[in-house]
Amino acid sequence: MIAILKKGTTENEIKELTSWFEEQGVRCHLSKGDYQTIIGLIGDTSHIDTELVESLDMIESVRRISEPFKKANRKFHPDNTVIKVGNVTIGDGSFNVMAGPCSIESETQIIEIAKAVKAAGATILRGGAFKPRTSPYAFQGLHEEGIKYLIEAKEETGLPVITEIMDARHLPLFEDVDILQVGARNMQNFELLKALGETDKPVLLKRGLSSTLTELLMSAEYIMASGNPNVILCERGIRTFETATRNTLDVSAVPVLRELSHLPIIVDPSHATGVARYVKPMAMCGTAAGADGLEIEVHTNPKAALSDGAQSLTPAEFEDLMQAVAKIHAAL
Amino acid sequence: MIAILKKGTTENEIKELTSWFEEQGVRCHLSKGDYQTIIGLIGDTSHIDTELVESLDMIESVRRISEPFKKANRKFHPDNTVIKVGNVTIGDGSFNVMAGPCSIESETQIIEIAKAVKAAGATILRGGAFKPRTSPYAFQGLHEEGIKYLIEAKEETGLPVITEIMDARHLPLFEDVDILQVGARNMQNFELLKALGETDKPVLLKRGLSSTLTELLMSAEYIMASGNPNVILCERGIRTFETATRNTLDVSAVPVLRELSHLPIIVDPSHATGVARYVKPMAMCGTAAGADGLEIEVHTNPKAALSDGAQSLTPAEFEDLMQAVAKIHAAL
Amino acid sequence: MIAILKKGTTENEIKELTSWFEEQGVRCHLSKGDYQTIIGLIGDTSHIDTELVESLDMIESVRRISEPFKKANRKFHPDNTVIKVGNVTIGDGSFNVMAGPCSIESETQIIEIAKAVKAAGATILRGGAFKPRTSPYAFQGLHEEGIKYLIEAKEETGLPVITEIMDARHLPLFEDVDILQVGARNMQNFELLKALGETDKPVLLKRGLSSTLTELLMSAEYIMASGNPNVILCERGIRTFETATRNTLDVSAVPVLRELSHLPIIVDPSHATGVARYVKPMAMCGTAAGADGLEIEVHTNPKAALSDGAQSLTPAEFEDLMQAVAKIHAAL
Amino acid sequence: MIAILKKGTTENEIKELTSWFEEQGVRCHLSKGDYQTIIGLIGDTSHIDTELVESLDMIESVRRISEPFKKANRKFHPDNTVIKVGNVTIGDGSFNVMAGPCSIESETQIIEIAKAVKAAGATILRGGAFKPRTSPYAFQGLHEEGIKYLIEAKEETGLPVITEIMDARHLPLFEDVDILQVGARNMQNFELLKALGETDKPVLLKRGLSSTLTELLMSAEYIMASGNPNVILCERGIRTFETATRNTLDVSAVPVLRELSHLPIIVDPSHATGVARYVKPMAMCGTAAGADGLEIEVHTNPKAALSDGAQSLTPAEFEDLMQAVAKIHAAL
Repeated sequence: MIAILKKGTTENEIKELTSWFEEQGVRCHLSKGDYQTIIGLIGDTSHIDTELVESLDMIESVRRISEPFKKANRKFHPDNTVIKVGNVTIGDGSFNVMAGPCSIESETQIIEIAKAVKAAGATILRGGAFKPRTSPYAFQGLHEEGIKYLIEAKEETGLPVITEIMDARHLPLFEDVDILQVGARNMQNFELLKALGETDKPVLLKRGLSSTLTELLMSAEYIMASGNPNVILCERGIRTFETATRNTLDVSAVPVLRELSHLPIIVDPSHATGVARYVKPMAMCGTAAGADGLEIEVHTNPKAALSDGAQSLTPAEFEDLMQAVAKIHAAL
Repeated sequence: MIAILKKGTTENEIKELTSWFEEQGVRCHLSKGDYQTIIGLIGDTSHIDTELVESLDMIESVRRISEPFKKANRKFHPDNTVIKVGNVTIGDGSFNVMAGPCSIESETQIIEIAKAVKAAGATILRGGAFKPRTSPYAFQGLHEEGIKYLIEAKEETGLPVITEIMDARHLPLFEDVDILQVGARNMQNFELLKALGETDKPVLLKRGLSSTLTELLMSAEYIMASGNPNVILCERGIRTFETATRNTLDVSAVPVLRELSHLPIIVDPSHATGVARYVKPMAMCGTAAGADGLEIEVHTNPKAALSDGAQSLTPAEFEDLMQAVAKIHAAL
Repeated sequence: MIAILKKGTTENEIKELTSWFEEQGVRCHLSKGDYQTIIGLIGDTSHIDTELVESLDMIESVRRISEPFKKANRKFHPDNTVIKVGNVTIGDGSFNVMAGPCSIESETQIIEIAKAVKAAGATILRGGAFKPRTSPYAFQGLHEEGIKYLIEAKEETGLPVITEIMDARHLPLFEDVDILQVGARNMQNFELLKALGETDKPVLLKRGLSSTLTELLMSAEYIMASGNPNVILCERGIRTFETATRNTLDVSAVPVLRELSHLPIIVDPSHATGVARYVKPMAMCGTAAGADGLEIEVHTNPKAALSDGAQSLTPAEFEDLMQAVAKIHAAL
Repeated sequence: MIAILKKGTTENEIKELTSWFEEQGVRCHLSKGDYQTIIGLIGDTSHIDTELVESLDMIESVRRISEPFKKANRKFHPDNTVIKVGNVTIGDGSFNVMAGPCSIESETQIIEIAKAVKAAGATILRGGAFKPRTSPYAFQGLHEEGIKYLIEAKEETGLPVITEIMDARHLPLFEDVDILQVGARNMQNFELLKALGETDKPVLLKRGLSSTLTELLMSAEYIMASGNPNVILCERGIRTFETATRNTLDVSAVPVLRELSHLPIIVDPSHATGVARYVKPMAMCGTAAGADGLEIEVHTNPKAALSDGAQSLTPAEFEDLMQAVAKIHAAL
């Protein structure tokens, strides 16, 4: 961290400032020019509050040199993290599609869809049992029962499964689940992140609607700092002024995250657009951008889906998407 | 809810559609014009998924006539909700300022600040024991010990107290706290909202960084639908492209929320701006806009604050703010 | 347009309202249900101010059924518009890359770059002579002299050329230019749009930093309504809260615009990202999304570029991009 | 400007870099620490492209120490700029309200409204003759005829007048106009700004919908750098994700601009909210924030207004607003 002092700062003020920094456990290196005095802070500055330092009278500006995330940082971990679930690997250059219904509605429904998405090439089954819904009056998922059906579909098809967890108290219900998903609205539910960090299950962490990529990586850091290195990042659209799509897929997140972090990156075009007919082109974009895989909503009867029917593909549409995506992936 | 059909929709399609709506428990009223066919949906449409309906082939557009929130809606509850904590009332036209440090750091600190803010006219003491921090390496609060100190400050000064809760599992620790605060990042932590809805404690619900006012009211609805009517809304700045302030205080939220809802409204200029010297003018704005009160960060030594020092006022600055705000409130 | 009346609106009020609509040249079709009264407005409603109608006391809500743009609308012009410049066609399924420097700096520079981008497969040469710069102290372009050099490069290489126009008064200087570019900041400079509408030159219209896709199409409509049907739409990134890239490329704009309009669509990944190393993956995304082509900044010596060097590719990087993009295009 | 070099940068690279900076007319001051090497750039750095410098391989980060605006900067011009039009002064602590219709519709209309707003305490008359409308089919204003009526209203009432200019070619028509308004959509129409900078008329410059405050000041700088120091800044709402109001009034712009610049600041609550009943509370906020005045839309018959009727106040509503605002101003 570099702090640039205002002109006219006195020797005494500088002394006081450097003592204060040293009390916080960092060493100071002073560069006095006839132009400007600069303090370089050496050591672990991750707990220093830049906004507070910037607000001090004698400070012109402050700049972090190093990113505030460590364990998620590619600089300290140059090789890609590879995550294994069942016989599937994520992050090693292979391309994995997680597909299934927004909500698990019945045993028949989830098994039928699981077979359909497997036939089309999906390698992981998704399905929601706990559903975060804006309205308390909307369908909230089948909860424990839903997870039971999901595990049956896993046994039936051999596909590893991913489903969302909304509260640390529910963790015991997820024992047979392969990947725990943290939704966009919970990306900064830090108590949940810490609880997941104490497990060893892979966690797919969705970017919050208005979270920067640095904040996404800091949330990954919460999980990793608590002991769980198995984090998968997921871009699922951000909130902007545009209303033609539900959110705006920030596909540039893929190369930016690839550069900053070693964690695998998944793109979710279903939630990003909210419109079934835009899912295929956005899936192709995510693939072209270099993602490690996709998460796609598929339903055998979107019109009857209990949630997010508007953005669900039929199995036939999903098969079409898979073929288009395979061609793009082959072209990379 | 009104659904406008596309031209050329056949009788059979209309029949199929109305049956589908009726299966979902609403009645249909058909208006056929030579211009357009319109279906009015009558009954409780709060669980109908407008995005799904809009995605159907035969639908031109869909429009909710009624807001999706009920218990928070002024239409069904014209009188202002008044919340009592200790001998303080919020929402009855009085003006309450909740003030105190971002983080509780020690018994001495919180008691000293409590006395200072009470002397300046604050009616409620704020102080954080559980701190949501972007970085896992930043100070996370004193937790149980912090709440103990806060309660001591309450006993010492007689001020009711407000502090943030981040996880339903912590609820037992908050028994002597007067108002539970839900932070911006947890505004859509629905499991937490439901747990708070099962208590009878007043809840101050902060607007999420990128949440619409309708979403804020839907989150209030979660608490109220679970049985707790004592919700206070809080505008604390939204995320925009502007970086001169940490967030952008959306002060128009005050008249909009006042119109839509009967719940009390508090403005938090400290988090909205993130800069101590902008807190006073923004506090004056919030007052002029008609808020029921303010939440302000005050610290006896902002430079040494363990969190959010950049936006904290000294007791002297706070006193100055209180005088300015009192003049504005008198002018209304 | 559909206007839904509030319950309790009297016969007299309805009469007054319909007369008022009829004075504005539209016919009214009334649907009275026991549920709600709805007025369908028939005829050309493009000049009716929906916000004003919505603000009337007796109105519950208003909804446009038809889009406000006509000439740019695919509904009224189902076939793709194909634009010809020299021996290049845009919009007929071919893929065109417009490449060159942000600013034209000298005759040698533009000719050298023109040859390089042609060799790599670009079909159109771009280069700025009038530069919109945030600062009045930044390099503003070579103006007339720059256009002269650009035309020389065109003669030397045979490539048609595109360059930005910032003011209608400059039009006479652009006689030999093939495509006139309107920059993001001028997307709603309506006087300029009208002046360009009176020419017959193709116009590449860049989306404003915070313009919706409907607003982009309304600006295209300005040009077309003035008599010039040769408009090319360009997505170049929108302003969001994210700062990892200069702007956020909204690649979902491609399928949305394709659906709404028959005009060709170009993606500009250079301005969207502002960072040279992200240009290639975003170019691949734009191609995968189905754009008709790309606009890319190329400079033989980015470090010495007089503007936008940070996002310019070297000829070698551009060649690499062209090969990647060709593979994606072939995979579609 | 401070450039921080990456570790491992060689002596030769540093030499090359400093030569390159010196070619651009700035001197370099080198601070070599064992921690980091920093180059301080001395002299006029306003034309140095920070993004380009940041993109160089050997650069860790770059930071401007000084703001890129000079003439608009309070640092170099500590006293408030005071602008005189007729017998009205703006920026000297007095409070001026500019009121009138969005569009001038007839001689009778503008004179009637002028008298009404004068009676209520407005000191400047506003009225649009050239109207920037999203749709080419919407009413575009009476143009020359409108300005004629506005001047008649000025003569009738003695109020100085403000009206919008959209194109430098129209300047001769504005000879008798007191203040030229630049609309939000033209804030970065740099050719128009330069043309206005060559006049000596006061210019009210509206902030663009997605412009930062720094960009607003850079646009003011364009006018001032061309020779015209008489610029008035106007906050009129920014584009965000929230749709309850047309735009979001960023009232914190007032204290931020006050700190950065010496230019007068006006708040426009009519365009910010787009809803007549929110104009009064937002006018009160703007006043409480410390603005030098307001711009308010008033129409004797909002329902019949040819543009922006939804946000126009009646003369009675305007009078009520003026009384509320006067009380707030007196309380400051």
